[in-house]
Amino acid sequence: MTKRVAVIGAGPSGLAQLRAFQSAANNGEEVPEVVCYEAQSDWGGLWNYSWRTGVDEAGFPNHTSMYRYLWSNGPKEGLEFADYTFEEHFGKQIASYPPREVLFDYIQGRVKKAGVRDKIRFNNRVRDIRYDEGSGKFTVVSRDTEADRETSEDFDHVVVASGHFSTPNVPYYPGFENFNGRILHAHDFRDAREFSNQDILILGTSYSAEDIGSQCWKYGCKSVTVAHRTAPMGFDWPENWKEVPALERVNGKTAYFIDGSRTTVHAIILCTGYKHHFAFLPDDLRLKTANRLATADLYKGVVWNHNPKMFYLGMQDQWFTFNMFDAQAWWVRDCIMGKIGLPSKEAMIADVEERVAREDEGETDYDAIKYQGDYVQELIDETDYPSFDVDGACEAFYAWKKHKKEGIMTFRDNCYKSVMTGSMAPVHHTVWVSAMDDSMESYLEN
Amino acid sequence: MTKRVAVIGAGPSGLAQLRAFQSAANNGEEVPEVVCYEAQSDWGGLWNYSWRTGVDEAGFPNHTSMYRYLWSNGPKEGLEFADYTFEEHFGKQIASYPPREVLFDYIQGRVKKAGVRDKIRFNNRVRDIRYDEGSGKFTVVSRDTEADRETSEDFDHVVVASGHFSTPNVPYYPGFENFNGRILHAHDFRDAREFSNQDILILGTSYSAEDIGSQCWKYGCKSVTVAHRTAPMGFDWPENWKEVPALERVNGKTAYFIDGSRTTVHAIILCTGYKHHFAFLPDDLRLKTANRLATADLYKGVVWNHNPKMFYLGMQDQWFTFNMFDAQAWWVRDCIMGKIGLPSKEAMIADVEERVAREDEGETDYDAIKYQGDYVQELIDETDYPSFDVDGACEAFYAWKKHKKEGIMTFRDNCYKSVMTGSMAPVHHTVWVSAMDDSMESYLEN
Repeated sequence: MTKRVAVIGAGPSGLAQLRAFQSAANNGEEVPEVVCYEAQSDWGGLWNYSWRTGVDEAGFPNHTSMYRYLWSNGPKEGLEFADYTFEEHFGKQIASYPPREVLFDYIQGRVKKAGVRDKIRFNNRVRDIRYDEGSGKFTVVSRDTEADRETSEDFDHVVVASGHFSTPNVPYYPGFENFNGRILHAHDFRDAREFSNQDILILGTSYSAEDIGSQCWKYGCKSVTVAHRTAPMGFDWPENWKEVPALERVNGKTAYFIDGSRTTVHAIILCTGYKHHFAFLPDDLRLKTANRLATADLYKGVVWNHNPKMFYLGMQDQWFTFNMFDAQAWWVRDCIMGKIGLPSKEAMIADVEERVAREDEGETDYDAIKYQGDYVQELIDETDYPSFDVDGACEAFYAWKKHKKEGIMTFRDNCYKSVMTGSMAPVHHTVWVSAMDDSMESYLEN
Repeated sequence: MTKRVAVIGAGPSGLAQLRAFQSAANNGEEVPEVVCYEAQSDWGGLWNYSWRTGVDEAGFPNHTSMYRYLWSNGPKEGLEFADYTFEEHFGKQIASYPPREVLFDYIQGRVKKAGVRDKIRFNNRVRDIRYDEGSGKFTVVSRDTEADRETSEDFDHVVVASGHFSTPNVPYYPGFENFNGRILHAHDFRDAREFSNQDILILGTSYSAEDIGSQCWKYGCKSVTVAHRTAPMGFDWPENWKEVPALERVNGKTAYFIDGSRTTVHAIILCTGYKHHFAFLPDDLRLKTANRLATADLYKGVVWNHNPKMFYLGMQDQWFTFNMFDAQAWWVRDCIMGKIGLPSKEAMIADVEERVAREDEGETDYDAIKYQGDYVQELIDETDYPSFDVDGACEAFYAWKKHKKEGIMTFRDNCYKSVMTGSMAPVHHTVWVSAMDDSMESYLEN
C-alpha cells in the first residue's frame, strides 16, 4: 500500500489516529504512510500546558487554552481509552477527577507504548493545504518553525485533528476600549493567583465560566460576578459569588448590567467560547459549523462531504472525548484502508441531516449525553476498536451532572466505576477545594 | 498600463504607497491598478488602537501593539510628511510629542485628502502569496474575514508593507511556567492603570521598556524594576524605579537576578522586541533579516533581491518613520512604473553589502541617525517626492536624544522647529507627567 496520509495535529484526536493505524499494523495489516504535523514542540494538544499567551515562539497563535491548577471537570470514567486503561497506565486505580498533569501523562502513556512519536513532525505549522483535481492529491505546505523553512508534500488523504478550543470567540461590549483593568479571554487565562484579592467579572455560563470562576475563588479572589445572556448557571455558589444579567457596557472599572445594577471589577474574563478556525484551509476544504453534536457537512461526523478523501476528527461539541476520538480515528482508518465504503454524496448529506434532526429532538443534557453515547457506539460497532459499556459511561456522566447540582465546589470529591475494568475509583486524599497542589506526585499519593 | 500591484497592509507604509501612486495619477500619469489588502477593519496599522490582545475577531494574530496613553516617543518634527504638514492638517502648529489619537488623525488626513480609501480591501487577511515563473505573476490568496471567504488574484508586483512590530519576540526564563503573576509581552500591554499599585518587572532596555515603564510609573504603579542583559538605560529615573542586571529565574512571585539580588513582583512585562514575521509568505519570497538599518536582501532597502518584482517597505529599524516610508514608496512606485531601472542581481547584492558595511562602521546613535537620514535623502533625490531638510530633521533627533538624557520624564515638554514649514512648535499646555488625558481634544486645546 503506497497511500500517504497527513494528520494535522498531535493532540488527543491526532494521536488517536496514529494509534489506530499502529494498531492495524500490529495486527499484520499493511497501513499507509502517515505523517503527523504538530505546531507545538511536544504532543498532547490542549493538554500540553504553556505559560505563553497570544502567539507562540514562532509568532503563530498560541494553541493551548490550558491553565494551571486545572482538574478534569468531568469524571475520568467517561473518557477512559478502551485499549489502555488508567489502571494499566498507573498500575492502580486512581481518583476520578485528575489534574492536567495526570491526564497528560495518561494520554502520553498509550502513544509511548505504541511507539508512534517518530510519525510526528514537531514545530511544524501547516500553512496551506490544496487539493488538485487532476492528480487527486492534497498538497500540504508546512513551515518548520525551528528550521525556519517550508516543506511541500503530496498526500492521498488529510485528517484534520487540530481541535476547536484554541481560537477564542471574543465579543465586544461598549466601553471595552476604555476599560481601566484587564480584559482577557479564557484562552489566555493561566494562573488563578494572578487574581487573588481582585474582583473579577466573568462573561459566559459554560464550562470555562464555571471552572475559571471556581479556580479564582479557590485561589483567593475577592469576588466573582458572572453575567449571563440567557440564564444563570444556578449552582449553589459561595457567598462572594453572584450571578447577574447580561453586561450592557463598562466605564472606567465599572461594569453596568441590563437590569440597571453595576459592579466595580479589576478584570473581565471572557468565557465566551471558541471558534472552529482553520487558518491553513482554503474555502473548498474548510469546515464551517456551529459547535454542536451533529456538525455540518461531516458524514458520520468525520467525512468531509465535499471531498470524502478528507476527514475531520473531534469537531463535535463534546460530552465524550478521548474514547470518542478513538472511535472516530478507528473508523477513519478503516475508511482510508478501504474496509469501510462510502455511500453517494446524496446519502452522506442525508446522513448529516438525519443527525441534525435527531439532535434537535433532544431537550435535556441527558438526551445530549445519550445521543453522543449512541454515536460512539455506532462507530465502534463498525470497527475493531475494543467494545466497551458506553451506556455505563453515560451513567457516569449522569451521576456527574447530579453531583455538580449537589455542590459545585464538591463534585470532584466523588468517585465512579470504570466501565473498562469494573473497578471503583478511590476517594482522593484531599477534597478538591483544599487541594492547592495540582502536581501528579501529589495526586498519586493515594 | 495594465499592470496590477498588490500592497499588503494599510498602515503608514502601505498608505504611503497608495499616496505615491495617487500623486502620480494626479500629475496625469497612467498608473497601475493597485489593490491594498488590510487585515484590520480600518487603516492606520499600529496606530489603529485595539483593546484586543492575542487574536483578533477573526482568530488571526492581533496586529496592533498600541497601548492607551501613548504619546509619540520622538518629536513629530522628525516624522512629518513633506507633502502634508501638521499645519496643513490641524490648521495650526501643534506641540511636538502628540498622543496616538493625534498622530492617527494626521496620518488619516493625508490619505483622506488623497481619496485612496477605495483601493483598500479591509478585513482581508492575506493567507498566501505564490510566484509563478511561467506567467511571471504573483497569486495573492486572501481571506475576507467578514464575508468568510477567500479570493485569489494575480498581480505583476507585490509590495509588502505589513510592518515588523506586530509579532513579539518572547524569550523563556526558568520558572516562567510556575510564576504566580502575570507575564505579558509589550505587544499585549494595553492600559497602564491595570498595574496601579503593583510592582512590575520589565525585561529589556529599548523603547518599549523605557516607555511602558514610564507609563506604569505615571499612572501609579508601586515600583518599576528593569532588568538588562548588556547595559542599563542609565536615565535619571524616579526613586521607585531601579535598574538591575539580567534575570536568571523566577519562583512564585520572586524574580532572581544574576547578581544574586531578588525582588517580588506582580507582573513581568517582556519588552524584548519584535520579529520580522510573514505568515503568508513562502520561503522564496520571505524576508529574513535582523532588525537593523541595512536590512538583508533588499536593494536600496526595498527591492527583494531574489525576485525584484517584489518590494518591502519599512523593514528597517527606524529613526525615521513616516517620511522614510514615503521616500521608499515614491521610489518603489517609480521602479514599478519603469522610471527607475534596476541593475543586475550582483549589483543589487553589492549594494546591500555596501550598506551593511557602512552601517557597521557607525558607532553612536548619532551616526545611526545620520546614516538613516542619508538613506532618506538618497531615495528622495531619485524621485519627485518633495525635497526637505533631512539634516534639519536629524538635528531634531539629536536634540531629542539630549533632552531625554536631561530628563526622561520631561523630554516630551520640549519643542522643535518644523523642517517643512520652518515654524516652531508651541509648548504644550500641560507637562507630560501631569497630562493624564491623552485625547486629541485635550491635546489641541493649546
